[in-house]
Amino acid sequence: MTDKLDLVIERTLDAPIDLVWETYTKPEHIKRWFAPRPYQITECDLDLKPGGVFRIRMTGPDGFDTGHGVPGCVLEVSEREKLAWTSALGPGYRPNEAGVGCDSFPFTAVVTFADAGGGKTAYKAVAMHKDSADRETHEKMGFQEGWGTVADQLGEFARELTTANA
Amino acid sequence: MTDKLDLVIERTLDAPIDLVWETYTKPEHIKRWFAPRPYQITECDLDLKPGGVFRIRMTGPDGFDTGHGVPGCVLEVSEREKLAWTSALGPGYRPNEAGVGCDSFPFTAVVTFADAGGGKTAYKAVAMHKDSADRETHEKMGFQEGWGTVADQLGEFARELTTANA
Repeated sequence: MTDKLDLVIERTLDAPIDLVWETYTKPEHIKRWFAPRPYQITECDLDLKPGGVFRIRMTGPDGFDTGHGVPGCVLEVSEREKLAWTSALGPGYRPNEAGVGCDSFPFTAVVTFADAGGGKTAYKAVAMHKDSADRETHEKMGFQEGWGTVADQLGEFARELTTANA
Repeated sequence: MTDKLDLVIERTLDAPIDLVWETYTKPEHIKRWFAPRPYQITECDLDLKPGGVFRIRMTGPDGFDTGHGVPGCVLEVSEREKLAWTSALGPGYRPNEAGVGCDSFPFTAVVTFADAGGGKTAYKAVAMHKDSADRETHEKMGFQEGWGTVADQLGEFARELTTANA
């Protein structure tokens, strides 16, 4: 039953796990890849500890703008292995009011990383929903395309860091 | 603004912090004090780690019965210092569907313990809500009386353990 409530993206990224983790967890990097182009992240707060804030502002060429958005909450941080956060709670674990768009339903993201050998990283992102209606809403918003594009951009940006560090 | 969304109970319990922590975190103990008498806890699951389940079943002499309830989620465990859990998420951090009664709105409980000297323990429980309407609903359900009674029962039971261990 559980997996019927989830949406999942998996990729093997062509960059080593240390740089993928860095790319995923530093706000200045997140701004570069977390929005599917041509959308942009113009603001990002990430306090990388349980109870810490995770908030982005996304804008688009068509005038799309999430505004300051509903700040989410970091739940679990296991360096180079796992990052979990949720939109159901805000910083300090306070339950969130629903917002609009992607903030109109609560979801939890569990992202895991594993060394895939040869300087590559296995990346998996699971979006967990409370019921199948929310899962479907998220899917119809373009989850697979959006999170898929973003996963590819994550890999590209981490690879650029690899090259820059080489 | 924040504290206007919270409900708070504070007590100095006449039992040492080690036993108060044990009383608060072992399901077989929780059953003895977590419901304001004459209500009873007939089932309790607590997996004491982030992402672990926290679930109780409460019954009353008037036929009151929460059933299996909506399982909540442990968020933070700092031994003898802090325990945080939420009803906004279930085990594994999946967002929860709303239930009835106390499960009809999400809240996060942050419980802290401190050595108050002389074998006593300072106990504080904060219930955090998403908005003032939920806070008010919780208050009208009898938060102060219910959580207050339960805090006193926590102290009594921990003291019984103290005596038993003496």
